Formats: sequence, structure tokens, C-alpha cells
Amino acid sequence: MLPNKPNSPSAAPPALVPNNSLITATAEEGRQLAVHMTRLIVKATQPDGEKRKALRDVYANDAMMLIAVSQVVATEFATIAAANGYWRSA
Amino acid sequence: MLPNKPNSPSAAPPALVPNNSLITATAEEGRQLAVHMTRLIVKATQPDGEKRKALRDVYANDAMMLIAVSQVVATEFATIAAANGYWRSA
Amino acid sequence: MLPNKPNSPSAAPPALVPNNSLITATAEEGRQLAVHMTRLIVKATQPDGEKRKALRDVYANDAMMLIAVSQVVATEFATIAAANGYWRSA
Amino acid sequence: MLPNKPNSPSAAPPALVPNNSLITATAEEGRQLAVHMTRLIVKATQPDGEKRKALRDVYANDAMMLIAVSQVVATEFATIAAANGYWRSA
Amino acid sequence: MLPNKPNSPSAAPPALVPNNSLITATAEEGRQLAVHMTRLIVKATQPDGEKRKALRDVYANDAMMLIAVSQVVATEFATIAAANGYWRSA
Amino acid sequence: MLPNKPNSPSAAPPALVPNNSLITATAEEGRQLAVHMTRLIVKATQPDGEKRKALRDVYANDAMMLIAVSQVVATEFATIAAANGYWRSA
Repeated sequence: MLPNKPNSPSAAPPALVPNNSLITATAEEGRQLAVHMTRLIVKATQPDGEKRKALRDVYANDAMMLIAVSQVVATEFATIAAANGYWRSA
Repeated sequence: MLPNKPNSPSAAPPALVPNNSLITATAEEGRQLAVHMTRLIVKATQPDGEKRKALRDVYANDAMMLIAVSQVVATEFATIAAANGYWRSA
Repeated sequence: MLPNKPNSPSAAPPALVPNNSLITATAEEGRQLAVHMTRLIVKATQPDGEKRKALRDVYANDAMMLIAVSQVVATEFATIAAANGYWRSA
Repeated sequence: MLPNKPNSPSAAPPALVPNNSLITATAEEGRQLAVHMTRLIVKATQPDGEKRKALRDVYANDAMMLIAVSQVVATEFATIAAANGYWRSA
Repeated sequence: MLPNKPNSPSAAPPALVPNNSLITATAEEGRQLAVHMTRLIVKATQPDGEKRKALRDVYANDAMMLIAVSQVVATEFATIAAANGYWRSA
Repeated sequence: MLPNKPNSPSAAPPALVPNNSLITATAEEGRQLAVHMTRLIVKATQPDGEKRKALRDVYANDAMMLIAVSQVVATEFATIAAANGYWRSA
């Protein structure tokens, strides 16, 4: 389910947080980051690209799963928005 | 599931956050924004309009899915409300 | 799923947030607002009153759906309670 | 699903928030309040006591529903704990 | 589902919050408390130990239920971590 | 479901929070910690490694379960990110 050594620094590029930062210039980019981070967690849990593609076809065509994906994105976005002071002065 | 270059600025109009801002004049508008952002995430995950319409007919007529959509909206609204200082002085 | 012009001011009465405000005099009224806002989102997603009544009969008699509705209300209430400073001095 | 006049003061005793307050003396009492408020929302959604008892028998004997009830209580408790400053000096 | 007199002080030992406090010395202990509080809510909802044991065997062997239990613990932990200032100086 | 003495200090190494701390150097490491903590809760609930492996194979190949795992990670990450001040100055 996970890379082998969580909590340890690594020379590899960040696999779970693009740019290794929650800070974005705008709300739109923050929202995109939320979607991206959701996708990367799915990738970490199911690293096989072929299987992942099959599963994506499943949930993109299943109403309840579409809603459930939206719930995850909403949760990630809440964190990212707080990190950015809600882009109040953007 | 996602636009190809999350985290990158783009000349295209915002696809996930209307007006590229979480700030609204009133609570009512904030609530509308929460619903809108929920819809846009579904759209990003299932870009095919015909399929999306079919799925919407499904969840609008399924009690559990209606509740689940409400849960997503509630989560988005929590973020938007915090961004706006809860419209306390509105 | 939504009114056509989210994010735009309108002369129509608020459809999603009663009184266009999250501020209430007491915790009890805040709780009632949470339930009301949950109901209004369901209404926006399924505007047909007859269908909505049928769905309500479903979830009021299904244990898991009753619990799921309670989860939505709990989430809305968290936002409303924060907006009101938790009615600490009420 | 709801009392008829949400958002309006009433002479009736609070139906959704016991004592009309989120403030409790201790964490234990706050936890009890979270459970109580969860039960009261279920009651507002399904006012028929007989039906509610039947549903309670269902979820008390269904592992997934027990977990889902716990999730609602956890969410309510988060709000109550914040309201009470987490009883840090209690 | 609940002890009979929520919100009332009692001479009985705390049944829902061990030590009647959210404060712990370390993050590890806070995490243990989150698991413990989750278990105690399940116990309050289904007080019959034999039935509870049967249900526990069910969810410990069901992938979706294991995940759902983890979700509850994560929610409780969020509250406990905030109460402890995230053990930043621990 | 749990170690026998939650809330008590112990000489054993932390079983639920790696390094007994929520503080990490970067967002990437914080995200890894969120995944790790999710895995450790599953381990505490189902200590049998063989059964756990079988269950993991189930959820890694089930779209809804993959989404549900992502929801747990998102919730844990929200807590960890807050603990770290969102790595704003990292």
C-alpha cells in the first residue's frame, strides 16, 4: 500500500505531493492540486497502471463512486485552502 | 480524471473554481458556489456530458446518493464559509 | 442539479441559506438551521416535490440512510457553530 | 424531516440541543452530548418512536451501521470539543 | 443507544472518555485514545458484549469495514490532536 | 481491536504513530506519514498479517474501497498538515 520507508527523506522526486508544497498561486490551482493529490494516493495504493485504469473506468461511470471521489477532493481541498489562507488577497 | 497539468498556471478560464475565488458577497452565494464546485469536480472526473447526464438522473432519484451529494456540498461549504469569515458582518 | 447562475446576485429570495445568514441566536436554532440547509440542498438536487417526498419516505425508514442524513447535518452544524463562536456567551 | 419553523424562536423546549448549549463541564459530558445530539437528529428525521426503535435494533446489530453511527458521533464531538476549548483546564 | 442521563454529572466512572480528558503526553497515546474512544462509542451503542464480539469479528475481516473504522479513528484523532496542540513541543 | 492499555505510557516502541510525532520536514513526508498512520490503524484492528494481506488485495482491486482509503488518508493528512503549519516556510 505504501512506499517502504515513510517518514524518511529521500532523493527521489516527491511521489505524493507535487512540488512538495501545498502553496499555490490561486484557488483554481489549489483545486487542481487537490484532485492531483487524490489521484496520487490512489496510485500509491494500487501501483499497477493497467489495473488502475480499469478501476478508473469503473468509478467514472458509477454515480456513487463519482460522488465519493468528489468527497475526497473536497477534504483535500479544505486542507490546501487553509494552507493558502484561502487566497483571500490573491 | 484530471486536466493534464495540475499546479501549472494556464491561460484557459478556471475550470474548477468559478471566478478563481472562494470569496462571495453573501452566505447564499457561498452556498451556491459550494454546489457549483461539487458539480465541476464531477465534470472533471467524468468529462462526457451524455454519461454525466445519465449519472445525474441516477443520483437525483436515489435517496442514498442524494444524501451523499449533500455531504460533499456540506464539506465544500465549510471551506468556503471559513474563507469568508462566515459572512459575520455581511 | 443547480440554479443556473451560481455566484451571481439575484433578486429572488435565498433558496439555499434561510435569511442569507449563518448567525443564529442560540445553539438550538443553529441546529435547526443545519437541518434546514441539508433539506434545501436535497431540494436543489431533486427539485421535483413528488419524487423528493418518495425519497424521503425511503430514507426515513432505512437505518443506514438515517445515519447518513445525520452525518450531513453534523457537518453543516460544525460550520454554523464555528460561525456563531459556538454560542459561548449566549 | 424537520420541525416546521426552523430559524424561529419558540417557547417549546429545545428539541435538538439539550439545554440549548454546547458547553459542558467535562469531556465525558461533552461526549454524552454528542451521542445525545446524534440521537435527536435521528428522532427529528423519523419522529415515529416505534419505527425508530425497529431501526435502532437494525443498526445496533449491523457492524457497518455501528461504525457509521460512531462516525456521526465523532463529527458532533469535534464541534462540541472545540466549543469547550477541549476542556484543557478542566 | 445511550446512558439515560446525558449532560448530567454522575458519580460513575467515565464511560466514554478514559480519564475524562483529551490531553495525553504524546501523539502515540493520543492515537491510542482515539482508538479507545471509538471502541467505547460502539460499546454504548451495542452494550451486549457477546453481540459486540460477533460484530467485531465481522468488521475485522471485511475490508470496507476496516477502512470505515479507520475513518472514525482519524476523525477522533483530529479532535484529540487539536486539543493537545499537536504535541508540537513534546 | 486495541492494545490493552490505551492512555498508558509504555516502554514498547510506538505502534500507531511513527517516531511518536506528527512533525515532518516537508509536505511529502507528511503525506507519507498520513498513509503510514492509516496502515497502522488497520493493523491494530486486524493484527493477523495473513488476513490483512488478503484484505489489502481486496481493496486495492475495488474502486470504491480505493476511494474510501483515500478518504481516510485525506483526513489524517488534514491533521498532520495543521500540526506542521502547512509547511508554509519549508
